[in-house]
Amino acid sequence: MHRTRVRVAEDVLDANATIACANREDFDRVGVRVVNLMSAPGAGKTSLLERVLGDGLLAAEHGVRAGVLEGDVQGSLDAERLALLDVPVTQLNTDPGFGGECHLDANMVRSALPAIALDEIDLLVIENVGNLVCPAEFRVGEDARAMVSSVTEGEDKPLKYPLMFRACELVVVNKIDLLPHLDFSMQNFLRNLDRVNPGAAHMLVSARTGEGVDELAGWLAEVARREPLPA
Amino acid sequence: MHRTRVRVAEDVLDANATIACANREDFDRVGVRVVNLMSAPGAGKTSLLERVLGDGLLAAEHGVRAGVLEGDVQGSLDAERLALLDVPVTQLNTDPGFGGECHLDANMVRSALPAIALDEIDLLVIENVGNLVCPAEFRVGEDARAMVSSVTEGEDKPLKYPLMFRACELVVVNKIDLLPHLDFSMQNFLRNLDRVNPGAAHMLVSARTGEGVDELAGWLAEVARREPLPA
Repeated sequence: MHRTRVRVAEDVLDANATIACANREDFDRVGVRVVNLMSAPGAGKTSLLERVLGDGLLAAEHGVRAGVLEGDVQGSLDAERLALLDVPVTQLNTDPGFGGECHLDANMVRSALPAIALDEIDLLVIENVGNLVCPAEFRVGEDARAMVSSVTEGEDKPLKYPLMFRACELVVVNKIDLLPHLDFSMQNFLRNLDRVNPGAAHMLVSARTGEGVDELAGWLAEVARREPLPA
Repeated sequence: MHRTRVRVAEDVLDANATIACANREDFDRVGVRVVNLMSAPGAGKTSLLERVLGDGLLAAEHGVRAGVLEGDVQGSLDAERLALLDVPVTQLNTDPGFGGECHLDANMVRSALPAIALDEIDLLVIENVGNLVCPAEFRVGEDARAMVSSVTEGEDKPLKYPLMFRACELVVVNKIDLLPHLDFSMQNFLRNLDRVNPGAAHMLVSARTGEGVDELAGWLAEVARREPLPA
């Protein structure tokens, strides 16, 4: 029984890698770069995207046309928030799967491709399901992986969810406006991050006050200008 | 391929229910009641347990001897924090599984039973892996399920993770000391909770200030005094 289960899991992993490559080829063909954005529930992914896309930072200052693929277990609350900003948003619900999948995989993203206006954008931000474990295990055809970590979650999170912090090239530390009210040492957090992902890039931001959001916009624009990754 | 995958998933679910029943029988035999405590990462499960167990509320005021089974993907940071309080703590890591399982299941809990001093406690609190999706799908042999939801996660969370909010009989709303610094309407949150789980019990607490912690201790003591659930 145990062996059977492992074999199936390996098949699924292989299938995911195959489909992720197919997604990447489709994105490359139309010149769209893709960011897989992950975090725990409520860390502020949507609020940060509202800031970056709503203030016109990407479009006006960097000439980058962005779209969003919004992954949720259920509902379309975040997609509705982002649709107010006049950027193309596609909702992808994991609900029909096994009890509501806790992550996006390459096949789910592939199923959404026909609904995304890829020829109208330069950058697709995939907002993954809020979860610090499984999303890190499934590539979806992205060029870069980034995560949002809220200071309210505590300075120990890199040590408790190392795979996620290791999988991302950028860690966006959000809600720094709350630091005066928390028992949170940024030095300890960054030391913990460095233990699991030495040299990882990070930036300190507040979606509430807008602090650091221009830096995040700059990073997204840099990804949009990258050469396609080798196959 | 798809059919094979679904069939395996159903087998696993059935096995989980079977083992959860076996766990429950073992707990009942020694008169231990069990709480399955869930939340997103960093919502404050461990900090609340530190308050309840550290201030002696359960032991001194309610005569309840509690133990903790600490579930984490990796590491033993939380178990080490709780061990300082002189309560029996057992660490259970999900790491050896498929990429680090994102939840506890009945079999994982069963594997830990020999390491728990069940004859020395009246109540076992199982601190699940930080995740708002999958832990709600796996019973582990508990008498009651409760969750911690931090106000920093936002008022929309019941609508985005309805299965978790529906699976729990108690929602502990934590970090209310931060309310003055957040755009969070408690009225909206409770309305959203009522939409997915009408009549669910809730309490407002702050692990940081200690507000509401006595109420949580009272609830845990009430669970400890319950009659065993029917098989």
